Amino acid sequence: MIFALAASPAHTQTDALPSWNDGQAKASIVHFVEQVTKTGSPNYVPPAERIAVFDNDGTLWSEQPMYFQLFFAIDRVKALAPEHPEWKHKEPFVSLLKGDLKAALAGGEHAILEIIMGTHAGMTTTEFEQIVKDWIATAKHPTTEKPYTKMVFQPMLEVLAYLRANGFKTYIVSGGGIEFMRPWTEKIYGIPPEGVVGSSIKTKFEMRGGKPVLVRLPEINFIDDKEGKPVGINQHIGRRPIAAFGNSDGDLQMLQWTTAGQGPRLALLVHHTDAEREWAYDRKSHIGKLDKALDQANQRGWLVVDMKADWRRIYPDKSK
Amino acid sequence: MIFALAASPAHTQTDALPSWNDGQAKASIVHFVEQVTKTGSPNYVPPAERIAVFDNDGTLWSEQPMYFQLFFAIDRVKALAPEHPEWKHKEPFVSLLKGDLKAALAGGEHAILEIIMGTHAGMTTTEFEQIVKDWIATAKHPTTEKPYTKMVFQPMLEVLAYLRANGFKTYIVSGGGIEFMRPWTEKIYGIPPEGVVGSSIKTKFEMRGGKPVLVRLPEINFIDDKEGKPVGINQHIGRRPIAAFGNSDGDLQMLQWTTAGQGPRLALLVHHTDAEREWAYDRKSHIGKLDKALDQANQRGWLVVDMKADWRRIYPDKSK
Repeated sequence: MIFALAASPAHTQTDALPSWNDGQAKASIVHFVEQVTKTGSPNYVPPAERIAVFDNDGTLWSEQPMYFQLFFAIDRVKALAPEHPEWKHKEPFVSLLKGDLKAALAGGEHAILEIIMGTHAGMTTTEFEQIVKDWIATAKHPTTEKPYTKMVFQPMLEVLAYLRANGFKTYIVSGGGIEFMRPWTEKIYGIPPEGVVGSSIKTKFEMRGGKPVLVRLPEINFIDDKEGKPVGINQHIGRRPIAAFGNSDGDLQMLQWTTAGQGPRLALLVHHTDAEREWAYDRKSHIGKLDKALDQANQRGWLVVDMKADWRRIYPDKSK
Repeated sequence: MIFALAASPAHTQTDALPSWNDGQAKASIVHFVEQVTKTGSPNYVPPAERIAVFDNDGTLWSEQPMYFQLFFAIDRVKALAPEHPEWKHKEPFVSLLKGDLKAALAGGEHAILEIIMGTHAGMTTTEFEQIVKDWIATAKHPTTEKPYTKMVFQPMLEVLAYLRANGFKTYIVSGGGIEFMRPWTEKIYGIPPEGVVGSSIKTKFEMRGGKPVLVRLPEINFIDDKEGKPVGINQHIGRRPIAAFGNSDGDLQMLQWTTAGQGPRLALLVHHTDAEREWAYDRKSHIGKLDKALDQANQRGWLVVDMKADWRRIYPDKSK
């Protein structure tokens, strides 16, 4: 009896992915992990090479009605307005402070860049870390009224844990700001600061009162999106991933880069199909547009997760 | 008897640093590690925060009579010369191809940059990795006639292994090229590609014949030296190290950044004092100048390792 229990394979005893409905998506993930971890299997991959990369916005947490980092930036504009009287006469700040988000963002990428630089630069890295920690602990999403860290996807938390339990290193590779994510990814995703790759602004080493600080400069250092994702992966990790998880055209090159390696590969796209429990959007969305990558997924047999059908639950709280 | 063996602390049974002579340097390293790993100690540091950073040139391997990466670059100039007829009329290549290294390097940093860009850019990352692997497997140092990977410091290999055995993550933070180190650091130092921070040139994602590649461009991306080291640490690791190992003024800011954090810190400088077994140089050396950092070490009580007195052995082979 004891022998029978001990000999029974672990995966029949517990389900590592309880928030996934049974179906092709779940089965494919499990099959991939079993393949690469089984000693003697022709597709065995040594632990050191088990690198998995995850986009963040729309893949690990929601991204509607706009990227959560933009809500952070807008809250910062409001908080910093008293120190910036010039913002009363300067777009996009004028519109933003009036509460007219649509007008503020009418300037497109340039407007967003102005907002980011006005709110993310000028302080030390330590100060910025604290600002992010304070915000993420208190801010609530405008429509769900949940803290943003409760809008992470429970099925993906399970995938992260399942991969790590099988010897994988899990990385975030996001277009979002690296220093915006690091203060909370360890607690929320189990991904430490060194596992986060993202966009960044330049920093400068300075001595202040005999103490060294890194000052955040209003200058782009790196954009970790689209063609930038393989560049960021190479720069930070220096090894090609064997598994990549995304949800939009911003992840296309990361999935191409990952699947171009030899041996077994897993490429997965989260398709937002659930207007009731989350949001439904793809080819025509302004945020998280999924068009070219969806075509490639269909052509190349990448796994497309149908959020509505494949996910038993969306968020960690049990209500949805 | 079994109980007595099991209860005996591991460090009294085996010496983790056998190539270190007994003395203050060795004792300080061991004391630091015991402090931060002892549960309940006021100086206990959780494993996730046990980050140790190591300079490479002059700290983990030798760097005389010039940085080993420059020997690589020179070998590449010779190998590539047939494809570059214009080098016959262009410095520093003319002098280099004539074998007049002194004249070639008379142009200072600009000349070095020309040599690096002429030899490190233009190919894909995969191609460059193979070039480095081939070179490191065969090239020999001009005076010792050893392979370069046999000119790593045995006492430092022991420190790396000792720290990792005590839950540390060990990183290289070097002014050398990140892609020049990664192909061999895992085998030689036990440090995987993702544990290497270094200088870099820009890369560009491209599709070639339906396959994605990263092409190395002749454009500096980041210089991981002096003020750049804390910037590189923050960018890659995102956490302040608790231990830093260097040997020159290029490491000063890394040691300042590391020791400015709260709690126990270890800052160590390797002082090259052994003209017989290795090289002796410090304040006036052209390579690996140790001047300001030595003053700061003396003022601030950083550990200065006297290579001649503190190291029983220099290289892994038993001859020295």
